[in-house]
Amino acid sequence: MYVQRAMLSGIIRSALTKNRGLWLPSQVMVRTMSSSSGPTSPYTTLSISRPTERVTHVELHRPEKRNAMNKAFWSEMVDCFNEIAADPECRVVVVSGAGKIFTAGIDLMDMASNLLQPEGDDTARVSWNLRKTITKYQETFSVIEKCSKPVVVAVHGACIGGGVDLITACDIRLCTQDAWFQIKEVDIGIAADVGTLHRLPKVIGSRSLVNELALTARKMYADEAKSSGLVSRVFADKETMMAGALEMAGEIAARSPVAVQGTKINLVYARDHSVAEGLDYIATWNMSMLQTQDVMKSAQAAMERKSPKTVAFSKL
Amino acid sequence: MYVQRAMLSGIIRSALTKNRGLWLPSQVMVRTMSSSSGPTSPYTTLSISRPTERVTHVELHRPEKRNAMNKAFWSEMVDCFNEIAADPECRVVVVSGAGKIFTAGIDLMDMASNLLQPEGDDTARVSWNLRKTITKYQETFSVIEKCSKPVVVAVHGACIGGGVDLITACDIRLCTQDAWFQIKEVDIGIAADVGTLHRLPKVIGSRSLVNELALTARKMYADEAKSSGLVSRVFADKETMMAGALEMAGEIAARSPVAVQGTKINLVYARDHSVAEGLDYIATWNMSMLQTQDVMKSAQAAMERKSPKTVAFSKL
Amino acid sequence: MYVQRAMLSGIIRSALTKNRGLWLPSQVMVRTMSSSSGPTSPYTTLSISRPTERVTHVELHRPEKRNAMNKAFWSEMVDCFNEIAADPECRVVVVSGAGKIFTAGIDLMDMASNLLQPEGDDTARVSWNLRKTITKYQETFSVIEKCSKPVVVAVHGACIGGGVDLITACDIRLCTQDAWFQIKEVDIGIAADVGTLHRLPKVIGSRSLVNELALTARKMYADEAKSSGLVSRVFADKETMMAGALEMAGEIAARSPVAVQGTKINLVYARDHSVAEGLDYIATWNMSMLQTQDVMKSAQAAMERKSPKTVAFSKL
Amino acid sequence: MYVQRAMLSGIIRSALTKNRGLWLPSQVMVRTMSSSSGPTSPYTTLSISRPTERVTHVELHRPEKRNAMNKAFWSEMVDCFNEIAADPECRVVVVSGAGKIFTAGIDLMDMASNLLQPEGDDTARVSWNLRKTITKYQETFSVIEKCSKPVVVAVHGACIGGGVDLITACDIRLCTQDAWFQIKEVDIGIAADVGTLHRLPKVIGSRSLVNELALTARKMYADEAKSSGLVSRVFADKETMMAGALEMAGEIAARSPVAVQGTKINLVYARDHSVAEGLDYIATWNMSMLQTQDVMKSAQAAMERKSPKTVAFSKL
Amino acid sequence: MYVQRAMLSGIIRSALTKNRGLWLPSQVMVRTMSSSSGPTSPYTTLSISRPTERVTHVELHRPEKRNAMNKAFWSEMVDCFNEIAADPECRVVVVSGAGKIFTAGIDLMDMASNLLQPEGDDTARVSWNLRKTITKYQETFSVIEKCSKPVVVAVHGACIGGGVDLITACDIRLCTQDAWFQIKEVDIGIAADVGTLHRLPKVIGSRSLVNELALTARKMYADEAKSSGLVSRVFADKETMMAGALEMAGEIAARSPVAVQGTKINLVYARDHSVAEGLDYIATWNMSMLQTQDVMKSAQAAMERKSPKTVAFSKL
Amino acid sequence: MYVQRAMLSGIIRSALTKNRGLWLPSQVMVRTMSSSSGPTSPYTTLSISRPTERVTHVELHRPEKRNAMNKAFWSEMVDCFNEIAADPECRVVVVSGAGKIFTAGIDLMDMASNLLQPEGDDTARVSWNLRKTITKYQETFSVIEKCSKPVVVAVHGACIGGGVDLITACDIRLCTQDAWFQIKEVDIGIAADVGTLHRLPKVIGSRSLVNELALTARKMYADEAKSSGLVSRVFADKETMMAGALEMAGEIAARSPVAVQGTKINLVYARDHSVAEGLDYIATWNMSMLQTQDVMKSAQAAMERKSPKTVAFSKL
Repeated sequence: MYVQRAMLSGIIRSALTKNRGLWLPSQVMVRTMSSSSGPTSPYTTLSISRPTERVTHVELHRPEKRNAMNKAFWSEMVDCFNEIAADPECRVVVVSGAGKIFTAGIDLMDMASNLLQPEGDDTARVSWNLRKTITKYQETFSVIEKCSKPVVVAVHGACIGGGVDLITACDIRLCTQDAWFQIKEVDIGIAADVGTLHRLPKVIGSRSLVNELALTARKMYADEAKSSGLVSRVFADKETMMAGALEMAGEIAARSPVAVQGTKINLVYARDHSVAEGLDYIATWNMSMLQTQDVMKSAQAAMERKSPKTVAFSKL
Repeated sequence: MYVQRAMLSGIIRSALTKNRGLWLPSQVMVRTMSSSSGPTSPYTTLSISRPTERVTHVELHRPEKRNAMNKAFWSEMVDCFNEIAADPECRVVVVSGAGKIFTAGIDLMDMASNLLQPEGDDTARVSWNLRKTITKYQETFSVIEKCSKPVVVAVHGACIGGGVDLITACDIRLCTQDAWFQIKEVDIGIAADVGTLHRLPKVIGSRSLVNELALTARKMYADEAKSSGLVSRVFADKETMMAGALEMAGEIAARSPVAVQGTKINLVYARDHSVAEGLDYIATWNMSMLQTQDVMKSAQAAMERKSPKTVAFSKL
Repeated sequence: MYVQRAMLSGIIRSALTKNRGLWLPSQVMVRTMSSSSGPTSPYTTLSISRPTERVTHVELHRPEKRNAMNKAFWSEMVDCFNEIAADPECRVVVVSGAGKIFTAGIDLMDMASNLLQPEGDDTARVSWNLRKTITKYQETFSVIEKCSKPVVVAVHGACIGGGVDLITACDIRLCTQDAWFQIKEVDIGIAADVGTLHRLPKVIGSRSLVNELALTARKMYADEAKSSGLVSRVFADKETMMAGALEMAGEIAARSPVAVQGTKINLVYARDHSVAEGLDYIATWNMSMLQTQDVMKSAQAAMERKSPKTVAFSKL
Repeated sequence: MYVQRAMLSGIIRSALTKNRGLWLPSQVMVRTMSSSSGPTSPYTTLSISRPTERVTHVELHRPEKRNAMNKAFWSEMVDCFNEIAADPECRVVVVSGAGKIFTAGIDLMDMASNLLQPEGDDTARVSWNLRKTITKYQETFSVIEKCSKPVVVAVHGACIGGGVDLITACDIRLCTQDAWFQIKEVDIGIAADVGTLHRLPKVIGSRSLVNELALTARKMYADEAKSSGLVSRVFADKETMMAGALEMAGEIAARSPVAVQGTKINLVYARDHSVAEGLDYIATWNMSMLQTQDVMKSAQAAMERKSPKTVAFSKL
Repeated sequence: MYVQRAMLSGIIRSALTKNRGLWLPSQVMVRTMSSSSGPTSPYTTLSISRPTERVTHVELHRPEKRNAMNKAFWSEMVDCFNEIAADPECRVVVVSGAGKIFTAGIDLMDMASNLLQPEGDDTARVSWNLRKTITKYQETFSVIEKCSKPVVVAVHGACIGGGVDLITACDIRLCTQDAWFQIKEVDIGIAADVGTLHRLPKVIGSRSLVNELALTARKMYADEAKSSGLVSRVFADKETMMAGALEMAGEIAARSPVAVQGTKINLVYARDHSVAEGLDYIATWNMSMLQTQDVMKSAQAAMERKSPKTVAFSKL
Repeated sequence: MYVQRAMLSGIIRSALTKNRGLWLPSQVMVRTMSSSSGPTSPYTTLSISRPTERVTHVELHRPEKRNAMNKAFWSEMVDCFNEIAADPECRVVVVSGAGKIFTAGIDLMDMASNLLQPEGDDTARVSWNLRKTITKYQETFSVIEKCSKPVVVAVHGACIGGGVDLITACDIRLCTQDAWFQIKEVDIGIAADVGTLHRLPKVIGSRSLVNELALTARKMYADEAKSSGLVSRVFADKETMMAGALEMAGEIAARSPVAVQGTKINLVYARDHSVAEGLDYIATWNMSMLQTQDVMKSAQAAMERKSPKTVAFSKL
């Protein structure tokens, strides 16, 4: 272990003096065009805003570090989505990145001690502690899936490593024409363990492509992301994408939250169960959920050819 | 509950006087170009014919109601496919819609009392009865999947709400250039509970698209249906599509029913099991099914470069 | 049973005199352009070579029989991949076919006695023996999946019947512009039982297409193979494809074998489990695998902007 | 096949002339002490009565044939339990056997043609038909499990073959001191295929005992049935057992049907799922079922130290 | 809903004036013989002590309320076991109850508002909130199972309702001769939804007994608890039981925590998976855990015939 | 790692000089009363005999080492049971131990280098190799389960550690009055990883007992083994047990091998699947297996009141 720590010191020192890196965030970075002026308290890596009454916007916000995922990020995401899950005002979430790119992925500088110098008196105890750490980091993205409110993610520029783990846990993926995606983990000697390997194959339809991306760490650009089904829409630039994302979020937010959140919960359930199991579950789910006044309100609006946006649904 | 019933009455009255609707079938409708003159006895919503010896054609047949799914439909489908499953003459099924569109989905006028005024002395008992109703309606489309004969569905015009539930339970999907698809349930305040949420993600390869369609209720047109894999072929118009569907049905019907129906059964099984489980199952399946004379007959035809259509297989 | 054997004799005799066949390998065939001069000992149907230090090339090598899968093939594949799995030098495998096409599929002439004349004193005992045979043949392709080293398959010309079973068990699929694919089993009266029905639906995103291919036995050409996601790249001809396959294999081989093989193992695991199960498994997997020196070596190379190809990883 | 039919004829003729049998019902049998005078219309093998307002008593009633399960029985059970499931008056079911023993199991004389002379032009088609028959017969006992009302079964004397399949599908098992149980199938050359092999291991705690019983066909007497957990109570004789069964049924029937039937449904679900899956399911179940007035009524009775039998619950 | 609240008020008032109850804790109660003088801060319902260096004793401690489970209890258990899980000093947990009995189960007085007056603007929203509550309460006992340290529970006197949910989530169950167990939920109109229905059938071997207990709410005494396998030991009185529990805890605590906690984790995993899945998981688990110095230390002690209690294992 | 190897050397040296051990086999041991004079070629740790025509007797045969499981044993078991599985003469297997006890479990002296000094350049590679070793050792007992012939195991004296792993993989367990069982792994610092933790909970009915045995390593004697259901019969001494085991084996061997082996295969399948899955599988299994002449032969024998031992079934 001693050798490893010495080697690590060298790497860190070298990085600090060179002050740059491929997927590690550079130390100096021009000011970003982020729409908000900085992370909202109490978060240091996320900026939370409420563009419309029912939509929450979560912005990865360390633009000077290319939104690299540092220690704070991994726990702030959990707090943030737990709050969102409990917030009766919020019906839909939009996630995007501040600055030049969506995210450079894990901030290895900041995370190195956790991942590369785990504590423990022997191999078993080091392993025990590593497992706890991995499990905790998995939760960072699983909270997105566990949150019953739909999450639309809008990607511009690079989406690297942990970024792919993040977006595969979201419900709807959009990107700009200049976006690219890279499963980076194999390049630093690890099998991706916080979600990409598990969710990506259930997110896109070509297993050959999944394997190629995960094993070669090659970049995938917007067109292939669209044709493979990773994203469902590509926009010319970030501005039009954000407008599109918010419009889509608005469409969803206008509908009955009982219907919308029940749909998300059952779609996630369906992914991990047989069709028969899924049908049984939703029958049990809907035996109460159909008894909502939202059905009447929605039906009436439809009959009267009004937009669902005109209907006032109770909070959920 | 009282309020709801009052509100419902209002909706119904309003609908009756206005005599039209977006996805509710309008009361008056021009005569359709349906190939058959009307539903075959004993069905009031389905027209059954036998275009060729081994192919059964099931036509949704309430053209004046845009093939909306009324109470009769939900049970007639079960009877119809149970009959087909037991009919040794039939080897393949083609499903299509009479009139201007494939189907407008559930006939809310006719179904309202079932879904919106369930009986029961308290919430638990209302829920209990609703669950029975949902489970029964799920069977309407699950019979398609349980029928071991392949089902080719041909969609023209609109395929809305329950229509998507129906077609995702079929084996092969074709459509015309003017077809469009809409998961409508969220627009009336419910999470789709008769199959779409469970089968669609296993039918097409883009989860982002599935989620977008289910959460926004936006329309998807033929081109996107083709590129996303929902349909495997798009035809210029209904006539060429029906010709194509029947030709494809003929190709399948010409092959050994032991092979064809075993293939369907094992494909459905494979969807809901691990690869290892699926392989174990088909080994157990084929230990008897390989002992069919169809293998010899098929092999001989292949050797002699004859079409399988020339081979006479025993009934199954 | 007697009738069947007599019929079989007739078929075989007829085939021998006519000396040709659609998907049965013809008896006479012009010399192939196979890159190697013949199967490497100890295999009679496979030619094994080592194009680069860490890449093993497995070539289906019965070019005069269009690489039809005879009895020897089914067991040689098992031996071959078990050897590869145990070979610490090999990090990636490339599979291709010698001669004019990738493979004509099962060699019915050679296999007929096994499949069509199974032994047994009564139907139950015949079935028992057939099940053993099927299970054994399934292993022929499952070894590819069980081998923790990634397998890139490169298809040119025809890939018929058993060929589709083979390639769906590989990790990455490439093909030439002239390649075509055909699930042939239904044409000889059997439900495909060595993998296609189980793996193909999890390999491509359109279930309608899977069903159509399996039920009609129609050919699918390179463009549709690409757009449906069966292959992730199409090349102009075999030569450029082989170059591309080896380059991709080189990229993978250059990375940490701990990361690469852990990625494959967990991707296969993820396919057959829920996301939650997969995440739990990889946390347990990586609690030890993260303790590899490869992480340090890889990180250092990345920091210094060196290619992973410059890093010397220990054997695995 | 010809040989088999000839052999069968011999067996049947021999049986008819000898007019007796070990587990096949003898043709002549003294009058039984069955409590009811005969099967209630419309059943020929079952006698249905209503000993108390909310308890349905289903009696196997072919005492002169030792309640052997003939063709009629296998379908009457399905009709009977479907009726019971739909009957809002019935809250609990008691099953017992008329005459000297509980049941001699399958009536081979009557069933022989179905099981031993299945139709079909070749082995595959015979197999196909056999599978349909087995699946249909499995339903005969699965309806007991699918019926949400608890089923108490009371066994006296012999419970052989199909009888064990039947009782393992019930919820609570009682027996008399003279009862014995025998998994008979292996003695006639078949692996038990209508439930015993699947339910018994989940019903009792000793797998060694399950295997021994299934593989040797030895008899198990009341004491071992009690100590192994097959039955939860042993009574001195049939009369006291029936009194005990009805008392227990009365206890269950006195409680809230929402609670009781929800308990059965979730216990069956729990058996076939992980604990986490089961907890998720019952949370989804109870989110509506807790909204029953039965909770208030039950709580009030408990507070006032009244028996639940004094509470009037709405029908379910 | 108004009626229900009125009814509830009546019940509560009635209970307060009568000042007693069957399974609701009475308001006045003689002083208990609890070994500790009161709950340890910060808990109001639990008293935590450390009888030996490595054993934590959790005592249900509302003796004047017969350890009824009030609102505080349901969340304190979660905090308590999360703390224990993270405490490196603790290797084993013993759970028991202060005062006259183990626990009277849920404290309906305190919980009524949560369970019986859930908030929500319509049935769907009430259901939504109830589901959240149920899920939260399930966690109260699931934390016991998720805590990797073995939990020995020692029951004296009554163990009612929620008490059975609690003990079935523990690893080892002991009781006194005067103990009795009662699944009480059906008596208040609900299907038990926090664990009993899911864990009990996997804890004892007789399904008939499980069903009888859950459907009739009858009491089970110590002897039947022992013969059915619910408890593995019965002691004469509480004092000897507590001595026995601590001795057993000491035996476990003396062994390698890597081995002990790995055993618990894999036993829980095995319960919910097939044997093959379980074997795969533990192979992946032990590939690192076998690399503990504890193996050497344990082996050396065994060679030298020393007790494992003499070995100093590192903390985990 | 250096320290560990040094420590190991010490342990081994110490053991060699002291020449004894609790559960490690002592070096000198009096001659045993094994019925056979020594291991049958080609095995060095197993003695194979054929007491009757259809029964194979596998005797653990290193009596001077208390049948401790050395390196040879772990692979010989695999060869032995693969041979038995393929031997058409053998219908049932009996396993017992030569000498004074059934088995002392793993031979740590012989196995130490494999388990305690695994090779590998870093922790990940050591782990990789350990996983391969564990997986290989798991197969040693899984072959018993995969062999379709029933295996009766007869235990006398001690059955320690690996012995419990072995017997839980057998179908029927018998023991002598002086037998005792001990899950020993936790005493040497490891979580049992070759089957006990996975099979024992599905073999006996008391989870509390399973946990207690696995976590405390206490001995369980014959009476508790019987009452808990681990064994289904206890005999006075080894001689009567062996007679009983052979008689039971004879009973099983006399029955149709199609029925017997189908029963075993489906019982193992049922353990790891839901009831519905198990029923589906056996319907698919029996659709061919019912077409055996054994049914006729068995039925005829039953009709004529002849013992199944008089029937000549074809080999399987």
